[in-house]
Amino acid sequence: MPTPLGTQGTQLAHHVFFWLENPGSVADRDALIEGIRALAAIPTVRALHVGVPAQVEPRPVVDSSYSVSELLFFDTLDDQNTYQSHPLHQAFIARFSPLWTRVVVYDSSGR
Amino acid sequence: MPTPLGTQGTQLAHHVFFWLENPGSVADRDALIEGIRALAAIPTVRALHVGVPAQVEPRPVVDSSYSVSELLFFDTLDDQNTYQSHPLHQAFIARFSPLWTRVVVYDSSGR
Repeated sequence: MPTPLGTQGTQLAHHVFFWLENPGSVADRDALIEGIRALAAIPTVRALHVGVPAQVEPRPVVDSSYSVSELLFFDTLDDQNTYQSHPLHQAFIARFSPLWTRVVVYDSSGR
Repeated sequence: MPTPLGTQGTQLAHHVFFWLENPGSVADRDALIEGIRALAAIPTVRALHVGVPAQVEPRPVVDSSYSVSELLFFDTLDDQNTYQSHPLHQAFIARFSPLWTRVVVYDSSGR
């Protein structure tokens, strides 16, 4: 059996999916990916995964329309609040939000 | 800097969000959570996180309407295919799909 992620049952997973204004622009996509990676420098970020849609077989339940996914783990909700207001995160939003048209966030408390 | 999840840059994150037929039923929710946890026994599953919507401040981009989140990591796309067709996963779908009305899946290849 694999170990559940994190050491606390309540660990917070912050899933974010981005749809780009120019989904065909590899340059925009890669710039956003680099920008997300840099968010790892915020001290309360425990782990991160940045991705693009996998080449899976199309199924009705699979949404492959987004351009970039961001997944961050925090120990607590307070740690995510620290992240949200951190200058690096604010600078990320200011710099990269012109590239995207839609963002969907799912914040999950581990059970 | 936290270590990126996994040891391979291409690690696959399988994000699944479930909306229940009876979102107010704690029994249904907890049964689904236990069912997801049992999926960790499938050998290609490298890590898992099961969650419920966190008590974050409402923001337009945050979707808190789902009931349960499932996050699995695989080393490769083939490993996810093995999982999809595994008897434990098929039994999970047969047993729990009557509980949900909507499922959204995002499969992300790590970058």
